[in-house]
Amino acid sequence: MVVVMHEGATEEQIQHVIERLVGMGFGVHRSTGVRHTVLGAVGARLDFDTRDIELLEGVREVVRISAPYKLASRSFRPEGTVVEVGRGVQVGGREVIMMAGPCSVENPEQIQAIAKLVREHGAKVLRGGAFKPRTSPYSFQGLGPDGLKMMREAAEANSLLVVSEIVDHTQVQMMQELVDIFQVGARNMQNYVLLKELGKTKKPILLKRGLSATIEEWLLSAEYLMQGGNYNVILCERGIRTFETYTRNTLDLAAIPVVKKLSHLPVVVDPSQGTGRRDKVPPMARAAVAAGADGLLIEVHNEPEKALSDGAQSLYPEQFARLMQQLRIIAPAVERTIG
Amino acid sequence: MVVVMHEGATEEQIQHVIERLVGMGFGVHRSTGVRHTVLGAVGARLDFDTRDIELLEGVREVVRISAPYKLASRSFRPEGTVVEVGRGVQVGGREVIMMAGPCSVENPEQIQAIAKLVREHGAKVLRGGAFKPRTSPYSFQGLGPDGLKMMREAAEANSLLVVSEIVDHTQVQMMQELVDIFQVGARNMQNYVLLKELGKTKKPILLKRGLSATIEEWLLSAEYLMQGGNYNVILCERGIRTFETYTRNTLDLAAIPVVKKLSHLPVVVDPSQGTGRRDKVPPMARAAVAAGADGLLIEVHNEPEKALSDGAQSLYPEQFARLMQQLRIIAPAVERTIG
Amino acid sequence: MVVVMHEGATEEQIQHVIERLVGMGFGVHRSTGVRHTVLGAVGARLDFDTRDIELLEGVREVVRISAPYKLASRSFRPEGTVVEVGRGVQVGGREVIMMAGPCSVENPEQIQAIAKLVREHGAKVLRGGAFKPRTSPYSFQGLGPDGLKMMREAAEANSLLVVSEIVDHTQVQMMQELVDIFQVGARNMQNYVLLKELGKTKKPILLKRGLSATIEEWLLSAEYLMQGGNYNVILCERGIRTFETYTRNTLDLAAIPVVKKLSHLPVVVDPSQGTGRRDKVPPMARAAVAAGADGLLIEVHNEPEKALSDGAQSLYPEQFARLMQQLRIIAPAVERTIG
Amino acid sequence: MVVVMHEGATEEQIQHVIERLVGMGFGVHRSTGVRHTVLGAVGARLDFDTRDIELLEGVREVVRISAPYKLASRSFRPEGTVVEVGRGVQVGGREVIMMAGPCSVENPEQIQAIAKLVREHGAKVLRGGAFKPRTSPYSFQGLGPDGLKMMREAAEANSLLVVSEIVDHTQVQMMQELVDIFQVGARNMQNYVLLKELGKTKKPILLKRGLSATIEEWLLSAEYLMQGGNYNVILCERGIRTFETYTRNTLDLAAIPVVKKLSHLPVVVDPSQGTGRRDKVPPMARAAVAAGADGLLIEVHNEPEKALSDGAQSLYPEQFARLMQQLRIIAPAVERTIG
Repeated sequence: MVVVMHEGATEEQIQHVIERLVGMGFGVHRSTGVRHTVLGAVGARLDFDTRDIELLEGVREVVRISAPYKLASRSFRPEGTVVEVGRGVQVGGREVIMMAGPCSVENPEQIQAIAKLVREHGAKVLRGGAFKPRTSPYSFQGLGPDGLKMMREAAEANSLLVVSEIVDHTQVQMMQELVDIFQVGARNMQNYVLLKELGKTKKPILLKRGLSATIEEWLLSAEYLMQGGNYNVILCERGIRTFETYTRNTLDLAAIPVVKKLSHLPVVVDPSQGTGRRDKVPPMARAAVAAGADGLLIEVHNEPEKALSDGAQSLYPEQFARLMQQLRIIAPAVERTIG
Repeated sequence: MVVVMHEGATEEQIQHVIERLVGMGFGVHRSTGVRHTVLGAVGARLDFDTRDIELLEGVREVVRISAPYKLASRSFRPEGTVVEVGRGVQVGGREVIMMAGPCSVENPEQIQAIAKLVREHGAKVLRGGAFKPRTSPYSFQGLGPDGLKMMREAAEANSLLVVSEIVDHTQVQMMQELVDIFQVGARNMQNYVLLKELGKTKKPILLKRGLSATIEEWLLSAEYLMQGGNYNVILCERGIRTFETYTRNTLDLAAIPVVKKLSHLPVVVDPSQGTGRRDKVPPMARAAVAAGADGLLIEVHNEPEKALSDGAQSLYPEQFARLMQQLRIIAPAVERTIG
Repeated sequence: MVVVMHEGATEEQIQHVIERLVGMGFGVHRSTGVRHTVLGAVGARLDFDTRDIELLEGVREVVRISAPYKLASRSFRPEGTVVEVGRGVQVGGREVIMMAGPCSVENPEQIQAIAKLVREHGAKVLRGGAFKPRTSPYSFQGLGPDGLKMMREAAEANSLLVVSEIVDHTQVQMMQELVDIFQVGARNMQNYVLLKELGKTKKPILLKRGLSATIEEWLLSAEYLMQGGNYNVILCERGIRTFETYTRNTLDLAAIPVVKKLSHLPVVVDPSQGTGRRDKVPPMARAAVAAGADGLLIEVHNEPEKALSDGAQSLYPEQFARLMQQLRIIAPAVERTIG
Repeated sequence: MVVVMHEGATEEQIQHVIERLVGMGFGVHRSTGVRHTVLGAVGARLDFDTRDIELLEGVREVVRISAPYKLASRSFRPEGTVVEVGRGVQVGGREVIMMAGPCSVENPEQIQAIAKLVREHGAKVLRGGAFKPRTSPYSFQGLGPDGLKMMREAAEANSLLVVSEIVDHTQVQMMQELVDIFQVGARNMQNYVLLKELGKTKKPILLKRGLSATIEEWLLSAEYLMQGGNYNVILCERGIRTFETYTRNTLDLAAIPVVKKLSHLPVVVDPSQGTGRRDKVPPMARAAVAAGADGLLIEVHNEPEKALSDGAQSLYPEQFARLMQQLRIIAPAVERTIG
């Protein structure tokens, strides 16, 4: 932390700030300039509120100079993290991993049909929701554990892995048997009770960015998981809320290179949630790969018109097939391969 | 729902849309204009995704004409809701209710001292956190149940009621004995597992608006609580996230008259969270009362400089006293009283 | 500017940064800590791009420690600025100044009728547009100079002053005769050609905040005016664009105490533009005064239903009368009077 | 416009709304349902304020069903617009057009050197600013007409076209001789005096999206140009302002497919302004092409460290060369070519 004192700050005020910093556990070095006195505070402490110093008398500005996270920061693992998901699938390696499937698991036939088709076109992971956090209490809330079992069977039959959303910490035990990747949804990105419980497992976690989460807050949520001991974290950009309402959310693709610089964790993109409309998904999926994403999460449905949730953003099978062809052209531009 | 067809929509396309609407359970009345055919769809169903119709061929635009919530809407209780909190305190009545106290309960002496002072100056409810959802895993996470007990004692000793944040559904039983109002924090506004559990109780719930929640989403979260059977819901505006970073959040005071029109629920304001800085709290507290708030949630600390969390936004005792005096001048302008 | 070097920064990198800073005209003082070297750069230069240093090798973070504006900053005039508008009216003094009138001047009868009524209820300045910057080319664009003349006459007949929007620098000469305050609209807050020309006059300028302008950018636009020699600047908060679309804009009332701390300039509020709906105007007008605004800009129309523009946000005469009564109750709470 | 009446609306209220609509020039067809009466209002009028109807008694909701723009809408030219810029260069055709150059023209040597290198790597248009709208009055404001002349010469010598920003309507005549494309910057997107003047010319105009402009407002600004008679409009996405501050702006790439659907105008992307940092430019440039952009505007400098403005977001020559190679791999995925 760097503390810049006001021009006219008194020696007494400066001493008071120094004492406060020392009391907080920082080492302080002081630098007296012609106009401003600048105090540098260093220490191992990650948690402090710069406002506590900012409001002291004589202080002009306080600047945090270290990131508030440690385990999630690039310097912790400069070489980058590759998350092993199972069946030899690696997120963060040379291959861009496709995770595809319906918004919700609806019945065995539906999930089997979709699993088969996404596998054929190159997906490695089957996505699908069994617990659906819905904005309205009157919306379809998912099939629950039964849905997960259907999904597991469809995945096994098609050599796919399973990613599905967990919405409560009491589900960890039960879901652990059925999924290969826990998905933490945008609304739960700061559900710390859930994060702490997931941090105790070893299973990969796909952590979606909250609708209004800054990149720093997103990395701090990853830090919660890692601090618990689980380093298998995959970040997922899925759009942020802005004033533009034509698309459901604004997909922040610049987050990909930003995260790559700040953190060692792999980052995938969900263009289905990010745009909310089927016809916008392929352009944004292509853009995500071109920008360097480590994978994609795509909603695909065999009959989108009959989907129980979010049919409007699910691709038709032929659209998914065509998208995969386009991605195979783009991937080499970023020195990647695709399934 | 009103469906406007494209100018050149074919009769076949129109029929397809009508069939789809009927299949969704709507009654349809058709109106054929010179240029556009317009379909009006009416029915009791609250849950549907307008995008499902929007993507059908020949459709130009689909407009939802009913609010997606029912129990939370003003038409459900045109006269407005008054929530009885205990000790005769009513939120939504003529008196503007002050809820004041520290960000976190720290020890018995602190909470007793603060309870005494806020009571003296007119507060009716003691606020304070025992479970703190913190952005960083390295921050002080609260004293837990012990903190709640200290708070309960301080409240009893000073004839105050208690409001405190619940962060997980497994805490409902335990907290029910210790608090008078459950507070659902901004990060948990869409934690549906928690909302469903709280909906089964009868205790008043103070529901904070999420950082990026629209007013409609906020009312839908209230609907979750009410649909479970608990109608004692108090809404709390605490600032939304915008591009302006000078204040921690942007307090959206216009939400007060907006909510008053859309819903029958009382609405209070938290200017401490909303601004993040002590010197901005009194102006925004005054503004909230002038705009028609039914109550305020204010952070006050006997020694803000030593607070374990958010000291920067806690008022000094004398600031709180002075604020109360100003509010007593303002309240009559909106035909209200204040403690 | 404070430059924090990476832990492993080489002496060569540090020297390169120092040379660059000196080359930019800064004096540099170096402070070598255990982990980080911190460089403090001081100088009279206001214009520099911190990113130029940020991208140099070995640099971890660069922090600007001085505001990028000088004349607009509180330290330039710690006692605050009172703008003399004419007829003894002062903005920034003890009295909260009411500026009221129609969105657009429509005809002599309309503006005379409105001038009379706003004067009766305590307004000191007549507002009204003659040049209307409209989002759509098909909207009413204002009466131009004729409208200004009608407004001048109505103002004179009722002992009012005139504030009206200028949309182009070529209008300065012509408008100077007809208005008492130039209004710079939100869309023109960064029209620097216009700001430079207005900076050469001595007439008061009401500078609206841009829809997506940070407070710092707003003060920098004020700096353009002041740097040209015109210190009679009144800032006007009128709502910012956020994700919430229920109201036209989100009125950022916290900007009042923020601006009061950062700058010496008076600040008024426009709740009509800020909310876009008549029924939201009185609550937000009351809130603005309670938060410390130096004045209000209110749209009032004798027949809002027939208004040529923005009738939906114009108050009925009786609403304005009632609002003034409420404001007279509130003003003493902030030690102010009102007309 | 569709007007939905409240359930209990009286016949008198309905008649009043119908009269008002007819008075505004609309034809009205009425549809009486079991619960709601719905009024459809059709007419040629583009300009009306739905709020005027919304505030009438008995009205529940009013929905605009036609876009507020006509000439800019896709239905006006379903086949799409190709803008001929000169030297056979077409924006909106099969080739993705590269426009590259420095932020500001600084001197003849600089612009000549950059022109040569961007041409060598495939650019068709030289970009560079001579009039710089700067947030701070203390920043470098550009070389003015001299800069334009230097740029023209550099372009001619390298068979390039010129795009440069115009900041005021009085510059139209002078600039018309020197540039091939007028650039309207983000801050001037709603400078209607400027748009009207440019609408009278025939020269291509690159219209940047305002920092907080919705896509609809952006298209309405294009409508201003087209309504004046100039149909050679190229839209340019350059990032919007959001809560995320890690990047300068949030590049909204989904705007590409959205604009392609709503309008016939070509759309290019400026990833330099959109991100503000050199290392984020290549990923976002690749993403823009993959998402279907018709061209790119890229800042390139022969010596970014010495640039007089925005050096931090200018590519080094070798970065630009490498980016062009990557784009040549990506373009075929969207059935495009690149220079």
